[in-house]
Amino acid sequence: MEYRRVKDQKDVESLSGRTLSSANTIGPASAGGAKANSSWKLKSVVTLALTLLTSSQAILIVWSKRAGKYEYSVTTANFSVEALKCLLSLAALFRTWNCHGVTDDNRLTTSFDEVGVYPIPAVLYMVKNLLQYYIFVYVDAPAYQILKNLNIISTGVLYRIILKKKLSEIQWAAFVLLCAGCTTAQLNPSSDHVLQTPIQGWMMAIVMALLSGFAGVYTEAIIKKRPSRNINVQNFWLYIFGVIFNLVAICVQDYDAVMNKGFFHGYSFITVLMILNHALSGIAVSMVMKYADNIVKVYSTSVAMLLTAVVSVFLFNFHLSLAFFLGSTVVSVSVYLHSIGKLQPQK
Amino acid sequence: MEYRRVKDQKDVESLSGRTLSSANTIGPASAGGAKANSSWKLKSVVTLALTLLTSSQAILIVWSKRAGKYEYSVTTANFSVEALKCLLSLAALFRTWNCHGVTDDNRLTTSFDEVGVYPIPAVLYMVKNLLQYYIFVYVDAPAYQILKNLNIISTGVLYRIILKKKLSEIQWAAFVLLCAGCTTAQLNPSSDHVLQTPIQGWMMAIVMALLSGFAGVYTEAIIKKRPSRNINVQNFWLYIFGVIFNLVAICVQDYDAVMNKGFFHGYSFITVLMILNHALSGIAVSMVMKYADNIVKVYSTSVAMLLTAVVSVFLFNFHLSLAFFLGSTVVSVSVYLHSIGKLQPQK
Repeated sequence: MEYRRVKDQKDVESLSGRTLSSANTIGPASAGGAKANSSWKLKSVVTLALTLLTSSQAILIVWSKRAGKYEYSVTTANFSVEALKCLLSLAALFRTWNCHGVTDDNRLTTSFDEVGVYPIPAVLYMVKNLLQYYIFVYVDAPAYQILKNLNIISTGVLYRIILKKKLSEIQWAAFVLLCAGCTTAQLNPSSDHVLQTPIQGWMMAIVMALLSGFAGVYTEAIIKKRPSRNINVQNFWLYIFGVIFNLVAICVQDYDAVMNKGFFHGYSFITVLMILNHALSGIAVSMVMKYADNIVKVYSTSVAMLLTAVVSVFLFNFHLSLAFFLGSTVVSVSVYLHSIGKLQPQK
Repeated sequence: MEYRRVKDQKDVESLSGRTLSSANTIGPASAGGAKANSSWKLKSVVTLALTLLTSSQAILIVWSKRAGKYEYSVTTANFSVEALKCLLSLAALFRTWNCHGVTDDNRLTTSFDEVGVYPIPAVLYMVKNLLQYYIFVYVDAPAYQILKNLNIISTGVLYRIILKKKLSEIQWAAFVLLCAGCTTAQLNPSSDHVLQTPIQGWMMAIVMALLSGFAGVYTEAIIKKRPSRNINVQNFWLYIFGVIFNLVAICVQDYDAVMNKGFFHGYSFITVLMILNHALSGIAVSMVMKYADNIVKVYSTSVAMLLTAVVSVFLFNFHLSLAFFLGSTVVSVSVYLHSIGKLQPQK
């Protein structure tokens, strides 16, 4: 009888959350294992998609700029990205409704309780983008590229504080390394300018890193609040506010240009590709937030930065520096430590 | 009865080797704990001594060079260092004989079996120093400084292969980071030259790193072969061959200068300080080999390199680069990971 009770307890344990940690073992024996395995696969696929989409983003931007300046209006491009994300989410939603019918989880509810929180990340990003214009009073563009790596640290700290998720000590060490490695990989002879940044520049960089980190962590909190909620419903509400905010931006900034020359003036094939890429990587970010987390997102975009540089060697005859190799080594070790550090707290 | 057996088993476990891993806890309860505690203290003291002596070494060299070139003959200075180390070892040995009498462990035996292996590290270092003249055909001085960091990797690999000591996966990651961090800290605008090093330069740099790593690991093997052997006897045999080899070097290179101007021509107070510092750090290296290992030695000298740079800010108005801060961060994380990685294999 005693033995039986102990055995039952073990079965319950192996079916519960614990199996998530062993998700990468081959051939799961239980239903819990199969579920964990498919969740691990989904996580890998969305992370890989985000990495590839982000790394090709910078390359498309270089290509689109080859002719010199942007020929198209940036506000209409941003609007198109948000609108495309909305349309793609709606299309996916229609498909779900056709296949599985309308349920509580995939209904486009309009209760204020649910929808009220979605504009917050959009507002945070807008404030951050406004600050971006003012920080250049104190900091030059290469120094700003270096300071942007503070995002990595702010995301880790806010992830811990707001989402109350613990990272092991090895994972914290890996996170510091990720920040140092990314910065090292971007070093160039003029990088030391950043050390002359005045205190106002540092303060603004820190505030911007906190805003960006907070927006990311907040989005994860919204999306994870109802795990069973259909991701396309959540994405629709996330993006519809982007559409609205960007429509306001067009009216304020480019109303005359759009009225005189037309909405799609100056769009080329590369512009369309860029918009498609931005829309898909936006959706990939949401997917990573839903099925993985902000930490995975930060790793994914950091690795994408390194991939962009390597691909640029072949495409644009870009020369890799010794600092790039050293930084990439540190980032690789960081990824490795993050993955082996994961098992520690569950022992 | 069953309970009693389990309890006894636990007591035996807590008195056995397991206490070594908790050597840094305060107030050890058992004799084993006290021994581990004192060995840990000794290890810390010799490591700290090596770090401080090595970091002041580079500063003394800069000071002694302030007048421009070396005024004294470098071969007589090297001889003086080896002779001073011999004298200090003998003095310590006489003190031991007076206090504890002559035993099997502190007798200056002359059996070929024991003494025959001591010239080997001296020969290896000599070959490495000779190669140093030839590598500059292919590599410039700043690039050589960068390539010298290969020593870190070669020491780790040879330590694993020759001494058959295992490092945990976290410690290996930490070792790669130590190498990347030290190199990053030394980066300057001309560092990228190293990427143009021809294959001959790379081969020589790798051979030199292997020679230097092998000499270090071999010395540790000699010293650790008889753990109860008095360290001053071992040091005497290690240094006496240094005295002989450097005497040969004086005869070959500086015979005329020494005969005409005298042995101590051009020696200043700083020269004497430098010789004293080199002798003491040489002894500290032996002590670290005896009571710790080559891995601790590599960490100690790497941290010393960073300390030198920080002290140089105050002494010589040296400017620290962003690369230095990033490299130091990576080295610090490496030291941290090495220490937390230590506990893993004992679980």
